[in-house]
Amino acid sequence: MSPKITTELLKQLRQVMKNPRYVQEPVQAYIVPSGDAHQSEYIAPCDCRRAFISGFDGSAGTAIVTEQHAAMWTDGRYFLQAAHQMDSNWTLMKMGLKDTPTQEDWLVSVLPEGSKVGVDPFIIPADQWKRMSKALRNAGHDLVPVKENLIDTIWTDCPQRPCKPLITLDLSYTGVSWRDKIVALRSKMAERKVMWFVVTALDEVAWLFNLRGSDVEYNPVFFAYAVIGMNTIRLFIDGDRMMDPTVREHLQLDSTLEPEFRIQVMPYGSILAELQAVGAGLSPKEKVWLSDKASYALTEAIPKAYRYLTPYTPICIAKAVKNAAETEGMRRAHIKDAVALCELFNWLEKEVPKGTVTEIVAADKAEEFRSQQKDFVELSFATISSTGPNGAIIHYKPVPETNRTLSVNEIYLLDSGAQYKDGTTDVTRTMHFGTPSAYEKECFTYVLKGHIAVSAAIFPNGTKGHLLDSFARSALWDCGLDYLHGTGHGVGSFLNVHEGPCGISYKTFADEPLEAGMIVSDEPGYYEDGSFGIRIENVVLVIPAETKYNFKNRGSLTFEPLTLVPIQTKMIDVNLLTEKECNWVNEYHRKCREVVGAELERQGRHEALRWLLRETEPLARAQ
Amino acid sequence: MSPKITTELLKQLRQVMKNPRYVQEPVQAYIVPSGDAHQSEYIAPCDCRRAFISGFDGSAGTAIVTEQHAAMWTDGRYFLQAAHQMDSNWTLMKMGLKDTPTQEDWLVSVLPEGSKVGVDPFIIPADQWKRMSKALRNAGHDLVPVKENLIDTIWTDCPQRPCKPLITLDLSYTGVSWRDKIVALRSKMAERKVMWFVVTALDEVAWLFNLRGSDVEYNPVFFAYAVIGMNTIRLFIDGDRMMDPTVREHLQLDSTLEPEFRIQVMPYGSILAELQAVGAGLSPKEKVWLSDKASYALTEAIPKAYRYLTPYTPICIAKAVKNAAETEGMRRAHIKDAVALCELFNWLEKEVPKGTVTEIVAADKAEEFRSQQKDFVELSFATISSTGPNGAIIHYKPVPETNRTLSVNEIYLLDSGAQYKDGTTDVTRTMHFGTPSAYEKECFTYVLKGHIAVSAAIFPNGTKGHLLDSFARSALWDCGLDYLHGTGHGVGSFLNVHEGPCGISYKTFADEPLEAGMIVSDEPGYYEDGSFGIRIENVVLVIPAETKYNFKNRGSLTFEPLTLVPIQTKMIDVNLLTEKECNWVNEYHRKCREVVGAELERQGRHEALRWLLRETEPLARAQ
Repeated sequence: MSPKITTELLKQLRQVMKNPRYVQEPVQAYIVPSGDAHQSEYIAPCDCRRAFISGFDGSAGTAIVTEQHAAMWTDGRYFLQAAHQMDSNWTLMKMGLKDTPTQEDWLVSVLPEGSKVGVDPFIIPADQWKRMSKALRNAGHDLVPVKENLIDTIWTDCPQRPCKPLITLDLSYTGVSWRDKIVALRSKMAERKVMWFVVTALDEVAWLFNLRGSDVEYNPVFFAYAVIGMNTIRLFIDGDRMMDPTVREHLQLDSTLEPEFRIQVMPYGSILAELQAVGAGLSPKEKVWLSDKASYALTEAIPKAYRYLTPYTPICIAKAVKNAAETEGMRRAHIKDAVALCELFNWLEKEVPKGTVTEIVAADKAEEFRSQQKDFVELSFATISSTGPNGAIIHYKPVPETNRTLSVNEIYLLDSGAQYKDGTTDVTRTMHFGTPSAYEKECFTYVLKGHIAVSAAIFPNGTKGHLLDSFARSALWDCGLDYLHGTGHGVGSFLNVHEGPCGISYKTFADEPLEAGMIVSDEPGYYEDGSFGIRIENVVLVIPAETKYNFKNRGSLTFEPLTLVPIQTKMIDVNLLTEKECNWVNEYHRKCREVVGAELERQGRHEALRWLLRETEPLARAQ
Repeated sequence: MSPKITTELLKQLRQVMKNPRYVQEPVQAYIVPSGDAHQSEYIAPCDCRRAFISGFDGSAGTAIVTEQHAAMWTDGRYFLQAAHQMDSNWTLMKMGLKDTPTQEDWLVSVLPEGSKVGVDPFIIPADQWKRMSKALRNAGHDLVPVKENLIDTIWTDCPQRPCKPLITLDLSYTGVSWRDKIVALRSKMAERKVMWFVVTALDEVAWLFNLRGSDVEYNPVFFAYAVIGMNTIRLFIDGDRMMDPTVREHLQLDSTLEPEFRIQVMPYGSILAELQAVGAGLSPKEKVWLSDKASYALTEAIPKAYRYLTPYTPICIAKAVKNAAETEGMRRAHIKDAVALCELFNWLEKEVPKGTVTEIVAADKAEEFRSQQKDFVELSFATISSTGPNGAIIHYKPVPETNRTLSVNEIYLLDSGAQYKDGTTDVTRTMHFGTPSAYEKECFTYVLKGHIAVSAAIFPNGTKGHLLDSFARSALWDCGLDYLHGTGHGVGSFLNVHEGPCGISYKTFADEPLEAGMIVSDEPGYYEDGSFGIRIENVVLVIPAETKYNFKNRGSLTFEPLTLVPIQTKMIDVNLLTEKECNWVNEYHRKCREVVGAELERQGRHEALRWLLRETEPLARAQ
């Protein structure tokens, strides 16, 4: 992949940074964050402004352009990808490394005295605004909101904002009606004595109304805001989507509902004006609840004294704890996903030696097998299909320029998942179709030990996920190896494949404690730049654990793997496993056989079933 | 121990809370924090205001008194002790438990509308002021500084502030002269472009000037502040301590020094006025560096735009990384400390069966043996000498009312340490002088496994200590057991036994990464209320580790135990140890024999040497 040439674009951007048509006063720096107006991680093409200006299209990164410099902050998953995609106009700032300056420190070090730093107030989250604004002010500079997005002014062929039809989900999928969700939300609002709640995250709007969309690739969400009062519901959404009779019936738009459940539908673009009206009409003590990650523009619409900001909204927390209907849906989705992957790996085993399977072919084949499964909607993220050195690019996506042919001489890493109407999947398997080297097996086995250490961990109720992160690293650390990403993220239920408020990462601290019903990924890895990548990922459900002493009735938790895809035993150095770890692998494979085997049988997929049986033979440890 | 009767005191306090002689307007609540004006953890008797008003004298806790209520927040170490020491006027708020409200939330729930909450601005740290002030303001209340401390107004027999002679430390102890420390500090100041640095923590003043004191029991510090400019040094200290010729020579007060090293000595009480003068005289861009834990009063002396606040000061960070002279001193101190404990345990083994040794007798005997060692100064904290159920009171200190006799039927827990001129020690051993039960051995062995998991952990450079906390709990968690305190704290070098910025605790996140030369404790435990307590604590030094792959030259770290006191093998269920853990114990005991054995020999303590040899026989695991 060759880098995007950005010389001309940067020149244009630097011109509009001084153009009084767009800025009241010239700005000496302009920040281009990653997200959209909803602080989404995955964004629609019209919101890919950072990718447009820099060429770097990973899911996380912030660009800052000054009169002299252009710099990009991203994390360990994307160091290699960003370096490949950006031209020499750009400096890569590797977040997480000790010597990398923060954006604020860097700005202070390069800006002339008394500079103005511009940013789109709809894109920057309020908490980031606050931190950055303070740091800049302390150094004699100013962070200023630039109403017109400056990237949009130079992006002549910017695509339209999508506005696709909606999917309604009935109780068999959601377990709880949108009315009951509103009731529960209002009860949380009453507890905190707030009168209004502003729903800004796209997956929160979708979850609350039991609706899904396809405005953003991979994430079944749609562009909308909602403002919930104690007696009113306002949904801000564009297009003719609200004319669909199924949607009208689902939301009971034409029924005579009690007034507090009547949904007022308003244009998407009217949110700011409406919120300003709400803000202006508040009596003393009437608070408005917003996420502290809501945009600076929306947050400012509410006078400071009336704001109630929290890092996680009550919807975010309720959404994370899956109910019985959602959990069962997730189980079904993972069984179907496993069927597709058994088919794929069986196919790869036969085809790879012929030398005709590229990374793109393998990814397409995975999608083909998945799409044969019931209730398949789309993929849940861009498939990471990577072989050999490409495996070390943590969030690699094969493109024609980098597309490599799978062979019996290289490790193959496949991180993929799908959206089914009953659940979201995300699984990584690392395979060798020939004979792995002793070193490759050694590294794979350390990663597996870390995976098992998390998956089998028992911990008291109230434990936050970040406290489990080191368990995943311990075996690697003992040998002087590590990986530069977190160990796990929350997973939505036919929603975003990455969701808060829980996770397993050394980088977070403000995560909410793990609770039975939460679903996270467990995905330690090891990456050798220029050689190979290894990652073993299951999606796991938090469940109550049985322990000898049960924390004096505080209760304890552990994980149950929802992903049921064989872990390639060929890659395991059995002598490095403890007896307990060996038993874990064997029990896991027994369950794959039992559950996925039955489904393969039911679907008449006999060849894939034979592959599954072969791949799940018990390991035997030397005594 | 019977609780302190506080009815009358609370009545008096509630009166002064409304008395215009002390408060401009009545305050509806008054906060009594734990610390002194230096945010010390251990404080002088004159600063024990929270203990005076409540009876609870643990090292951590905040009291809040309203017109109707009196409540005390403390952490898991002190739940039992606080419950014992406080009368029914007080409500205990157990921090760390899910349902315990924060001080702010509680205040908001009990205060009448538009209340004023008072606090001594010299005692409350600026960061706490900010958080609490904001939360109260959001709820329509006000946090107000009350200049005269209200506890002092009702504390008729409040002791005098101590003002004891100073000890000077030469280069053989400190490794670096105070002049070189000032030079290094100024270079850090220049890096951050600050013109002034205010030293507010007592141990930071002591460390900077290579002086020690004894104003606070157990902590070799003295009441003082310092303000360091790029060309000036001001030391704020009371009494005739600066008349001592040794101190005058040490600080070169009578020499013709370059002006930038001349120390101006000023009265302790003049710090606020001097700092206000500094604040008033600042030119634009002249910043003043303070800890964000400095008192609100001192922080406010500097106009907001000129403040440079950090959670850890450069002195705190420099102090934590011990140099060769300090490390060698710490090693010597720990060998002497081990000699004293070998003598003690040998003596206890003979005396306990006679039924004449109480917790106080044992603690006194420990002090006696320690005081026989070279350069002994004092204890480093109140000895926790606890047997049977008293062991479950995590920071127990025996007093006549609770004093229990050691027996062959109960577990004995001794957590003790000393200040030697060459180093500070802190060690916990849990012993049984009869035959422990299978359950006691089981719990002890899980704690030991946790201790070893931390001590033997290997981790990459840049790792923060809190990421190691779960290693200490994993074996306990597997069986449904846990302990409600952190795993380790930084330890000073002939300074405070608890110091920042590093530690090993699930509770912190803003800790600085561990670095070679840092010294922390490793002290997991298990406590069964009403029955027994178990804790195994070593002080450990962070050292470079050798690993197979060395994190691609990022380098790796591990710990070396400085404490060399046998771990009672009688308490270990060897069958629960892995081979690696068993080898760790045997290697540790081999080192105790070699190093402490040689010193016992040198000191002619032959009986204690025989005890050491007996207690360090290698463990043998069933094959």
